[in-house]
Amino acid sequence: IRRRNIEENLQYAYEHHPETFTRVDMLYIDCFVNKTRVRAFVDTGAQTSIMSVECARKCSIMRLLNKRMAGFAVGVGTARVLGRILAVDVKIGSGVYSLGVSVLDQSQTDFILGLDMLLKLGAVVDLRRHRLFIQGEVEGIPFVKGEFMADVGSLIGGKE
Amino acid sequence: IRRRNIEENLQYAYEHHPETFTRVDMLYIDCFVNKTRVRAFVDTGAQTSIMSVECARKCSIMRLLNKRMAGFAVGVGTARVLGRILAVDVKIGSGVYSLGVSVLDQSQTDFILGLDMLLKLGAVVDLRRHRLFIQGEVEGIPFVKGEFMADVGSLIGGKE
Repeated sequence: IRRRNIEENLQYAYEHHPETFTRVDMLYIDCFVNKTRVRAFVDTGAQTSIMSVECARKCSIMRLLNKRMAGFAVGVGTARVLGRILAVDVKIGSGVYSLGVSVLDQSQTDFILGLDMLLKLGAVVDLRRHRLFIQGEVEGIPFVKGEFMADVGSLIGGKE
Repeated sequence: IRRRNIEENLQYAYEHHPETFTRVDMLYIDCFVNKTRVRAFVDTGAQTSIMSVECARKCSIMRLLNKRMAGFAVGVGTARVLGRILAVDVKIGSGVYSLGVSVLDQSQTDFILGLDMLLKLGAVVDLRRHRLFIQGEVEGIPFVKGEFMADVGSLIGGKE
């Protein structure tokens, strides 16, 4: 019976849930940090916005790093937080917003726009129109394709 | 000069960015999986929706587990994917939706509603009204407080 349940479930899924068998494009938006273009990963599951140390260097904002706020970030493993940049101007769409980011010594993603900053921006993540709406942006910011980022939710391998 | 930059930045942040110094409540919604109430974590940064094996057992849906889709999930570390439940009815608000979830052998979160299912639901994550809008839900589903979940974005410790 167990096997039949699964077979029926598989058959049903192929017909009704094709998205199960494909990979979804993650949500990225283009923005400018200190005049440098950065692709930001829109992540409601991240409590704090994060920038990799490479990205912070590329944007020449390491002089703003506050090392008194160093510590550790915990996910499935851990990464070291070098400190926090408390306020940096980020241009998103036509507006410029002053955001705070924690700088990590190793991160697969350049810049994660986490829930703290999404709340501050009064963001609306619209997956119907595939756009991010913030404050004054009536038109919304279109999501763009980013490089692949391995995440807790992404499956590598598999025996299928 | 570097030190003065940081001091000014800190001062500015205290005045204009009080959210830097507080923790934000993450986004959870209440839903029902096989008549069992589950608090789902709304995570646009997760490619795949995930359920912990404990939660799947609690909801009595382990009989639907397809082990041919086992593998590994990669975040800052790794976790084992026991398989995938291709279709399970989830009641959110007044509607019932057929969703797919990967089952993990260890997860700090019962149920992560990832980008795959948020896209499928045509979700709008509205941080102005603090509600999740999906398909037929005109009123929206209010976010509720969940337990604390450690994430890549959450800082533990710190020397401040």
